[in-house]
Formats: sequence, structure tokens, C-alpha cells
Amino acid sequence: MADYRTSALKSPIDVAEYLFLRLQQIGVDSIHGVPGDYNLIALDYVPKVGLKWVGNVNELNAGYAADGYARVKGISAIVTTFGVGELSAINAMAGAYSEHVPVVHIVGTPSTASQKNGMLLHHTLGNGNFNVFADMSQSISCVMEKLNDPITVASQIDHALQQCWIQSRPVYLSLPTDVVQKKIEGERLKTPIDLNLPENDPDREAYVVDVVLKSLLAAKNPIILVDACAIRHRYPVSMSQYSKIPKALKPQKAFLINNTNTEDLQVLDEVHDLIEKTNLPVFVTPMGKGAVNEEHSNYGGVYAGEGSQPDVKKRVEASDLILTIGAIKSDFNTAGFSYKTSQLNTIDFHSTHITVRYSEYPGVHMRGVLRQVINKIDLNRLSAVAGPTVQNEVNDNDDGTPTITQAWFWPRVGQFLKENDIVITETGTSNFGIWETKFPKNVTALSQVLWGSIGYSVGATQGAALAARDAGTSRRTILFVGDGSFQLTAQEVSTMIRLGLKVTIFVVCNDGFTIERFIHGVDAEYNDIAAWNFKDIIKVFGAKDGSYKTFQVKTKAAVNQLFADEAFNAAEVLQFVELYIPRDDAPRALKLTAEASAANNAKQ
Amino acid sequence: MADYRTSALKSPIDVAEYLFLRLQQIGVDSIHGVPGDYNLIALDYVPKVGLKWVGNVNELNAGYAADGYARVKGISAIVTTFGVGELSAINAMAGAYSEHVPVVHIVGTPSTASQKNGMLLHHTLGNGNFNVFADMSQSISCVMEKLNDPITVASQIDHALQQCWIQSRPVYLSLPTDVVQKKIEGERLKTPIDLNLPENDPDREAYVVDVVLKSLLAAKNPIILVDACAIRHRYPVSMSQYSKIPKALKPQKAFLINNTNTEDLQVLDEVHDLIEKTNLPVFVTPMGKGAVNEEHSNYGGVYAGEGSQPDVKKRVEASDLILTIGAIKSDFNTAGFSYKTSQLNTIDFHSTHITVRYSEYPGVHMRGVLRQVINKIDLNRLSAVAGPTVQNEVNDNDDGTPTITQAWFWPRVGQFLKENDIVITETGTSNFGIWETKFPKNVTALSQVLWGSIGYSVGATQGAALAARDAGTSRRTILFVGDGSFQLTAQEVSTMIRLGLKVTIFVVCNDGFTIERFIHGVDAEYNDIAAWNFKDIIKVFGAKDGSYKTFQVKTKAAVNQLFADEAFNAAEVLQFVELYIPRDDAPRALKLTAEASAANNAKQ
Repeated sequence: MADYRTSALKSPIDVAEYLFLRLQQIGVDSIHGVPGDYNLIALDYVPKVGLKWVGNVNELNAGYAADGYARVKGISAIVTTFGVGELSAINAMAGAYSEHVPVVHIVGTPSTASQKNGMLLHHTLGNGNFNVFADMSQSISCVMEKLNDPITVASQIDHALQQCWIQSRPVYLSLPTDVVQKKIEGERLKTPIDLNLPENDPDREAYVVDVVLKSLLAAKNPIILVDACAIRHRYPVSMSQYSKIPKALKPQKAFLINNTNTEDLQVLDEVHDLIEKTNLPVFVTPMGKGAVNEEHSNYGGVYAGEGSQPDVKKRVEASDLILTIGAIKSDFNTAGFSYKTSQLNTIDFHSTHITVRYSEYPGVHMRGVLRQVINKIDLNRLSAVAGPTVQNEVNDNDDGTPTITQAWFWPRVGQFLKENDIVITETGTSNFGIWETKFPKNVTALSQVLWGSIGYSVGATQGAALAARDAGTSRRTILFVGDGSFQLTAQEVSTMIRLGLKVTIFVVCNDGFTIERFIHGVDAEYNDIAAWNFKDIIKVFGAKDGSYKTFQVKTKAAVNQLFADEAFNAAEVLQFVELYIPRDDAPRALKLTAEASAANNAKQ
Repeated sequence: MADYRTSALKSPIDVAEYLFLRLQQIGVDSIHGVPGDYNLIALDYVPKVGLKWVGNVNELNAGYAADGYARVKGISAIVTTFGVGELSAINAMAGAYSEHVPVVHIVGTPSTASQKNGMLLHHTLGNGNFNVFADMSQSISCVMEKLNDPITVASQIDHALQQCWIQSRPVYLSLPTDVVQKKIEGERLKTPIDLNLPENDPDREAYVVDVVLKSLLAAKNPIILVDACAIRHRYPVSMSQYSKIPKALKPQKAFLINNTNTEDLQVLDEVHDLIEKTNLPVFVTPMGKGAVNEEHSNYGGVYAGEGSQPDVKKRVEASDLILTIGAIKSDFNTAGFSYKTSQLNTIDFHSTHITVRYSEYPGVHMRGVLRQVINKIDLNRLSAVAGPTVQNEVNDNDDGTPTITQAWFWPRVGQFLKENDIVITETGTSNFGIWETKFPKNVTALSQVLWGSIGYSVGATQGAALAARDAGTSRRTILFVGDGSFQLTAQEVSTMIRLGLKVTIFVVCNDGFTIERFIHGVDAEYNDIAAWNFKDIIKVFGAKDGSYKTFQVKTKAAVNQLFADEAFNAAEVLQFVELYIPRDDAPRALKLTAEASAANNAKQ
């Protein structure tokens, strides 16, 4: 056994310092969370290592924010306290698990001595069981490590962070109060955590590539369909992260280059190269929005079965070979399981396996296979038939009335958006409406099409905007959220104000839960909400005069005026827009999906 | 097997209707929760059976509100949706479990067919596992029933509701969308659920009574110490509940009387009779606040070890026999485990067992034993030595400055409170400060001394105020919450506004998490919060002019003026008070407990 007496350590470092430095190394600049007495000592190390403490208003919001941060910056961390704190965040962590988002959840727990003695402490169930809350997180964490023993802590942390990154799912670390300041070996920090995906077995990969190429070259009108997991597996770490490692513990240059040259971990590069090389038409699913350059001439639109535009539906369903990349064929991602495609005409690329028609090839990941397909394909033998093209159809959706309609608004948003924008849409009309928005280049789209927890988008916006700033960019961060959903997590706007984040928030004021009205209970009281004076909330949450602007927009003309306003486009202050759309109006795709959901709920 | 074809049913009734009628029968008049597509059809039955739908702003708040409702009215129910909804509420349910509060948690789930087929639905982890969320609730539910099969549904519901009531802890019911409208036998509703505690075995009870009496009569200066579980086990059902059962399904009178004569289920009656009969001095723990009439001449004050007033500490610790009733000796209930009492001088009465010094008597509950002790005690042989008396010590705690101090404020609150008030205190300075408040008669005190989840009190206030109104009373509901804690759940004030609940809210404005400053990080950034314009929030949340009043109170004189104001005392509108107390001021008991917590956190 290694000698872990402090005197035997070459560069002794406290456990919490090690943990936060490791997080910093892999790209976390700000730590989300809420203080609680079992995590306070650990939080002292956040500023000590040069990280920023966010200090969210509550733990659920903190979890949503960490999710948003990770989707923009590649990974994130949240600190909560035992029991009360971690359980308040658990819905957000389950969402991150469901949607493949890498969040490191650090839970400050009572001391190892208190746990051993089964003390009757606050934040417990009063039954001496200190494992019960961690057990609840087991099935929503890809790795769980209890940092109880200084001898193993460093390798536990490195393993968890590595798996969080590679599997792109949450990990759970419990950190007892008495372990926080234990000394461990700091030399280890000079060796970066290896975040590379293991290479595919070459023979296996070559075999699969061959099968794929045969199918592809035999097809008459193949297409590419890009879905969620193409975005999630994986993002690059920026070189700048490593410049922050304390001098004495800085990794050697060689490690740095190996490790941070991780653009090749990002499967999106393979997708983009595949499109460029093959010239095949490319479509995205709702969860794949933002994965490809929608200004590219090969981009054909959003495919979601019956929820697609007619020309998209026709082209995709007529294809004799669909290359799906990272598919998650969930109800809301397929307009209620309304795909009219056949597995007989499909090759599915996943991060853990490839499926060619009905043949499964486990143990090969798509990155390696796609790269070889790109390298080896004989373009002379490939049939690339052009697909439909997409525009933001504003005029065609103008009903001639002053009223803002869902059909008119979302294409209009596409004209307002700019390159590099971050767009967050809440579950509800926004999440379905955005299908009709054609993005400029490099737009990052955040939403929870699978998990669908209302209120998510407000927290996620705080995290996304902070991530953009932490990354040194000045990307606009724009939120579309319904009035009902906004109320669940509204107070996180106060964190945006405190941090000076210049987000633009559209609250779609349509008198309650419209998505639910379309599923069941169109006039039911339970789909109503309290009437808030939304825009006054900014001042209540502490915004200083001059640091924000509020707007009430009730007509198409007012929308046009706002979108034409230079200052509004520049987004140099926090902007809060009340956007009025009639209660019973909903995007086309939402109506279809809601009908399918209602039918499925009733099925015996 | 019973014939459950609809044609064989005498009084067919839909499953959801049965469930909500049963809830109504045991005293639930309003259902808390948030709508979601998997629970919408069930919610249609809420107004149908004459119940009120609350419609909380989010699920965590709904859970806190249900907890508050149950503490005032005896039991409560919350409806959430699968995954996202239930997980958002899980912290509140864990709190109810920890603190022994009976809440029925009904989760609307995907249809049994969808679950069987492992469909890739929204609100799932995408892995086909439909049990994972229920599994998380297993260890915080005293009963869990999945209502999948119409043949067993009615008995599952009855069993769960009975155990919720008797064990005074949450139960979890999952209700798939396709089961909601299945027909079951309604005749069963004519037989009320038996909520009576089983009687103790007479021989066993007599034996324990004998042991208790021997000790009690031998003691020179015995005292009574009343704790949490004396309050929790149990409340009466009001007769009025049964008048709401639909005529055709109304129980026979005989059942009614048997079942609703449940005042004798309330162990507080035994406690009160014990005090009256024996004339022994009585003390309460922090969690026992409100259990006894503090205006009674035998009332001696709050005992919490080092956290007690000196004369209380002296008297309790000098006693040669302490009768503790429903004790939960947790850290925050004992000022950091600072009791200086000996088990050698203690008899513990619990709902499941009695402990006499070091002898344990399992399988007997305190209600039966206490009743026999009261009946059999020979007063001529009992030594009842008077204890200290308590006043609200306002003048003694006046430091002569205009500044409001914690030491001065809490006794002053005691003079403001009236008989039958409901007082909610948040974890933090309020929860410790209230130890120094002597209550009028019949004050109900709500707090989370064991679970200690900040933000709880705001939701709980909504539930408590509604429960008081549902019970047909006009009790004042008064909340004391710190500025930091208020922010976590602030939006639930909008539910109070929407429901027209005339609560009085004191937000203690002291710049952040003072309780945490005293544990660790007195000036740490992580204990700071965003500066809100608190009182303007009422208008933002939709309150109409004339329906509310706001106040800013910064001096002792202003407090005195407010407490002297007749309209303020009448509390006929929602009242919101910003109460300014210096950041670094804390109640005596909090300082002691925080020191003990910090020491315990550091212990190796």
C-alpha cells in the first residue's frame, strides 16, 4: 500500500483543492450549487483555486444551470449538501442522465465519524441510514464514488471525471466534511486525465466500415439524419484551461497537447466531413437541431415523421438508405412515434454500437467508423440526389392579422438569430415551435425533448450564458419560455442579474400550460396559472436601472420593430420580453404530438 | 377471484373517483400538485367529487405545502407526474418521512401498456426502465402501491391511506393513465377506512404501566418533557368530512361515529390529561413547541441542553425522573447533543415502544400506556415539585438601541401572537429564535428541526393557511422566514395570492445565510445572496391593490407600532413585512448549535 502519511507526499494537497483543480483542468471555470453546512469547508477551495462560485437560488435551478453550462462548455459541476440539497437537485440530474449531459454532482456529507456512529443529525431521515440518498442517485449516475478514504480519493476522482466526460452522463461524488482537508499527493495533477475515447478494434471497425460502404454505394438516394447523440459525444477542451493549473502542478507540454487536441473527440466533425465529402442531403431531428450548419446547401430541414414539413417527410421516407447518427427515437422527438421509415432502409450510428438494417455490431463507436467511411468512400460510385431546401417561411405563414401566431413567429425568429447564438427553448410551444426556425451557422440549441421537465430552460439559460462568458466568447444567449414554465424556476433570473449575464428572455404569455391543453383539458382549471406582472420581476430580483430593458410585444408589427432594433440585436443589457400569443394557438408539430400522446395515454 | 366485470359491480365507480372520495373521507379537502400529461385525466375527478385543486407553482413547493396542510388538518395529498414531477417533489416527501408527516403522494404514470412495452417516452431515462423513480421513493414511503390492476386497486388504496394515517408518514401511489377510468366497486366506500391504532395487548400494557408507575412514585422530582412525536401521533378527523360523501355511497351512521370519534387517537390528549392529573412540571423540546398549553401554570419552558434558559436547564437536569414523550434527540433539537440528562433517569414513551431507563418494552404504544398511567396513578404518593415559570422576556432583552435584535424580537413575538395562531418558522434564525417565544393557548407551530430543508416554510405556509380555511376556522397563519431561504421557494406566495389566503409573512432581511455564517464562513461569498426588492414581489405575483399590505420595519419602535396596529392584528389581507435585523446577529441557541455542528463536521 502506498505511504499516504503527509510527510511522504512530494506535493501535498488538500482533497478539495485536488478535486477543484481537476475540474478546472477539464474545462469547468464556474461551480454551480447552493451552500449548506456539510459543504461549506469545501466551498472555501473554490475561490482558492481560481474558480468562480455561482451560488444559485435553489438546488433544482442549480442542476438545470449546470446542465446548460455543460451543453455549452463541455462539462460542469454542481455542489449540494447532504439529503435536502441533493434531493432538490435530483430531477435535474435525472434529466442530465436521460439527455446525456456530463455534470459532476458533488455532495457534501456529514463526517465519516458521524456516519459510522449513525448520529441523529439534521438532514437525515432520523434512522441512521446515511446511504439512502446516494442510493437514490445510483441509477441516474454513470459513476458513483464515495470519497471516504484519502488513499483512494485521487483515483476515484480521476475515474469519475473521465467517465463523466466519455460517457457524457452525470457522476456522483460524496465528500464528507472531515475528508475535505485531508492531504493527498498533488504530483498526480501533472498528468492530465485521459479523456480520449478508446480506439475501436481495427479489424472489427474495418469489417463494419465495409458493410456500411457496401450498403451506401448500393443505395439510390441515401440521406443523413442527425440526432441528439451526435451533439453529445463530444466537445473539445480548450487549451486555455490548462494555463490555469498552478505553476508547480502544471502538466508537461507533451501531456497538454495529447489531451487538449480533443476536437477529434467531437463526432460532429465526422458528421460535417461526411456531409462535405459525400454531398448527401442532411436532415436533423428535433433533438439534433443545431448539430449541422443549416445554411449549408445540403441541409434539408427537420424530420420528425408526421411533424415534418411535407417535402421533408416525402424525401426522407422515400430514401432507400437513411444514415442516422446518434438517434433517440422518443415520442416527442418523432412527433409521437410517427416515423414512416423502415429499419430495412436504415443504418444507425451510435457511440456504443452500429446497426446496419437488422444486423447489430456491438463494441464499435461511430466516430471511428464514420472517419473510415469518409476516408474510404468511392465518390464515383455514390448516388447523391439533392434534397429539399429550407427557408424561414415568414410571408407564407402571415395570416394578415396583427396577432402574433405560432406559425408566423418561429420562422421570424430564424431571421432574427445570428451566427453563434445560443438558443434555449422550454418544453411546450417553444420546443415544438423551434422546429420551424432555420438557424444561422454555429447556433447551439438547448432543450429537453426527451426529459421534458418544465422550468428547465430558465436555469439552463443561466448556465449557458455563463459558459459562453467563461469560454471567452460574446455569444448571445436567447431563451424562449412559456409563462407557466417560467414560474417554476423564475428566481434564477436573479442569478443572471447578479452575475451580469446579458441574456435575452422571451416569455410566451399565453395563459398557462398550452401543451397540456392540447393533450387533455383544453379549458380545465388545472391548466391555468396565476397572472403575474412578468416584466416587473426583473426589478424585484435586484436589477439596477440601466442594466436591463423590458418589452411588451403584442403584434407582428411590434415583433418586427423589436427585431429591427439595433440595440436589441446588440443585446448589451439583460432584455426581458413579454410576448403575447393567443392561449389556444400552438405549433403544428405540438398539436400532432399532443394528439399522439393523448391516444397513447388512453391505450389499454 | 372476485368478478370485476363492470356488469357485476353494484355501484361501479372509476378508480380516480374512488381514490379522491377516500381522501375526502379522511379529511383532505384540497389536492396539492402540478399538472402533467400523465396525471391530467385523473385531475378531472378532483372537482367532480367536490375537492379543490390547488395548482402549485412547482412540485417541490407543492410537496412542502402538502406537508404544511397535513400538519394542520391531519393528512394531505399531492399529485405529480411521472419522473420529472415526482423527483422535483422528492425532497419534500423525504422531509415528511423524516418529520413524521402523513402525505399521500399520487404519481400519474404512463399507461400499463406503454410500461410493458418499454416505450421510449418523454419523462423517462430513455432506457425502458419504468420502475426507477418509484424505487427512489421506496425508502421514504411507509407504503408504496402501484395501482396497475383494477381487481386490487381499492384494497391497495385503503391500505395505503390507513397506514399513512396510522404511521404518520408519506405513502406513494402510482396511477397509470389507463387505470384512471377503470370501473371498480363503489359499495366499499360505505365502509370507512379504519384509522384506529390497534389496542395494546392488555397484559403487556399492564406490565409496562406497572413498571412506569413504580418508577414515577419513587421519584422525588419528576418532570414531563414533550417532543415531536407527541404532536404527530395523531389528529382527529372532523365529522364534517363524512357529510361530503355522495349520498348513494354515504357510510352508515354507525361507521361514522366509530371512525370519526378519533380525538382519542391524538396522544396530545393523554399528555394534557397527564399534566392536569399529576400536576408535574412540563417542558417541551424545540420540536415539541406547540404540543402543550404554554399558558398552563405547570409549563416550564423549552429544554434543549445547553440551548435552554438557565433555570430550565437546571430544573430538567436535576430531575431524578424525566418522562419524555415522543422524543427525537437530533442535533438541532438538542442544541448539538448537549443534553446533560441520563438514561438512568429517563422513561421514553414512543408510538412503537416504551423504554424505562435501560429496559426496552417493544410492541406497546404510548397512548395506551399513558392512559392507564393517568387512570391508575395514586396522587397521594406522587411528588410533584413545581418548576420554573416562563414569560416573554421583552424588557430584559432590550439593549436600549433602536436596532431590532434577535434576543429582543422573539419574546416580543410572543406578545403579538394570539390563541389558535399557526406559526411557521424557517430553518435558520427563526427556527432557533422561536425557542424564546412563549405561545398563547392552542398555537400550532410548524418547522423542520430535523430535516431542515431551507425554503420549506414558504410552501408549508400555503398549505397550513389553506388547511385552516378548509377546516372552517379563521386561524391566523404567520410565517417567519430568512431572506436567503425565502428566495428558494418565493413563487409559492403567488399561490397564496391566487387562493386569497390572508397570511402574514415576515421576511427577516439579514443579508444571506446567517445560520451558515455561524457554522462556517462568516464573511464568505457563498453565504451572500442576491439583493431583492422583497416587498414588491407581492404585486409582481399578481396581487390586486387592496388585497395586500407591505411593510418595512427597521427599528424596535416600528415593530411595536406594527404589533399595536389593530388592522395588522386582524390580518384581513395578505401582509408582507420586511424585517431588518443585523447580518451577524443570531439567537443564542443558534450560536451554540452552530458551534457544535462545526465541531462535529471537523471530527476525524
